[in-house]
Amino acid sequence: MQQRAKETRLAVIEGAARVFAEIGYGNASLADITKRAAVTKGALYFHFTSKRELALAVIEEQHAIVLAAGSQIAASDIPALEKIVRLCRMFGQQLLDEPIVQGGIRLTFEASAFQADISGPYQDWINTAEQLLIQAQTDGAVRPDLDPAAFARFLIASFTGVQMVSEVLSSREDVMLRIEQMWAFMLPALISRPVS
Amino acid sequence: MQQRAKETRLAVIEGAARVFAEIGYGNASLADITKRAAVTKGALYFHFTSKRELALAVIEEQHAIVLAAGSQIAASDIPALEKIVRLCRMFGQQLLDEPIVQGGIRLTFEASAFQADISGPYQDWINTAEQLLIQAQTDGAVRPDLDPAAFARFLIASFTGVQMVSEVLSSREDVMLRIEQMWAFMLPALISRPVS
Repeated sequence: MQQRAKETRLAVIEGAARVFAEIGYGNASLADITKRAAVTKGALYFHFTSKRELALAVIEEQHAIVLAAGSQIAASDIPALEKIVRLCRMFGQQLLDEPIVQGGIRLTFEASAFQADISGPYQDWINTAEQLLIQAQTDGAVRPDLDPAAFARFLIASFTGVQMVSEVLSSREDVMLRIEQMWAFMLPALISRPVS
Repeated sequence: MQQRAKETRLAVIEGAARVFAEIGYGNASLADITKRAAVTKGALYFHFTSKRELALAVIEEQHAIVLAAGSQIAASDIPALEKIVRLCRMFGQQLLDEPIVQGGIRLTFEASAFQADISGPYQDWINTAEQLLIQAQTDGAVRPDLDPAAFARFLIASFTGVQMVSEVLSSREDVMLRIEQMWAFMLPALISRPVS
């Protein structure tokens, strides 16, 4: 794809993400999206043939954005357990700052409306957390008898609920605080018992 | 309301809940619902004037059903911490068995599609959990320096995520197992440190 076409496609995705984040899948129209993206109807239809296709593209782009930020943390030179904590903070911050992430997450909760299989992104994050937990066990930071697969699943599920309930009860104003509290309440299950 | 009218109203709510649970708010039509509820269009319109009104009634009825089952547990003669654990199991079981609960929970996730304020049910459960945690602190089962409001918020958020991710990844097949794992991972943060 030429640079110009790529930029237009991304502008359409960002405009769509903003519209979906604000009014949801069911209420959004392609007319709203062309207006918000400041593109012509023709430009939108060159890249996407339906609202559903656009919604899937927003979810895909959202996942790519968060994964890219996550890869930087995963590749950094800090202990594995600290990486998991930072990944959660990074995701929380993206929910506050990044329109494509806001749109993608709202669409994920509404995915049944357009028959999208959203299990892939959840599974990706569960796998990432599990690998980091295994590393943290090798480091001695996490107790050796913890089931890393079960805890990874619990962590991703809890994080999903924490950010969702923060959205419902505070329009995400308290999301970073709630993520810190989540970690404070989770750490006792993770840390190695001191040698006595 | 006469008994007959009450029964019809409940039949409409249950039919609506089944349709919403299966295909979601956006895809459901009043025609689907009258068919599923086995009532006439006239009977439906006697009680509800729009799909939105029906969706709000399903959420309200769902919350009433789970609260009623919750009240029995809350009034029973078991320790407060055990009550919280049983409340979560009861809610999980209702998600597996009760069509109105299944419909109500799906609608709760889709609530933005019909501009419903769903903060009330979350706040009710957070308050219930907080009161039980305070009682469990009095009982000596939960450590005295735990912040009951913060933990109650974390618990309800985690539960929300656990059942949601179970739905996405296993169509709720593993929901009871995931609720048990949630408790196993939460207990270390709650329990009093043994006197040394």
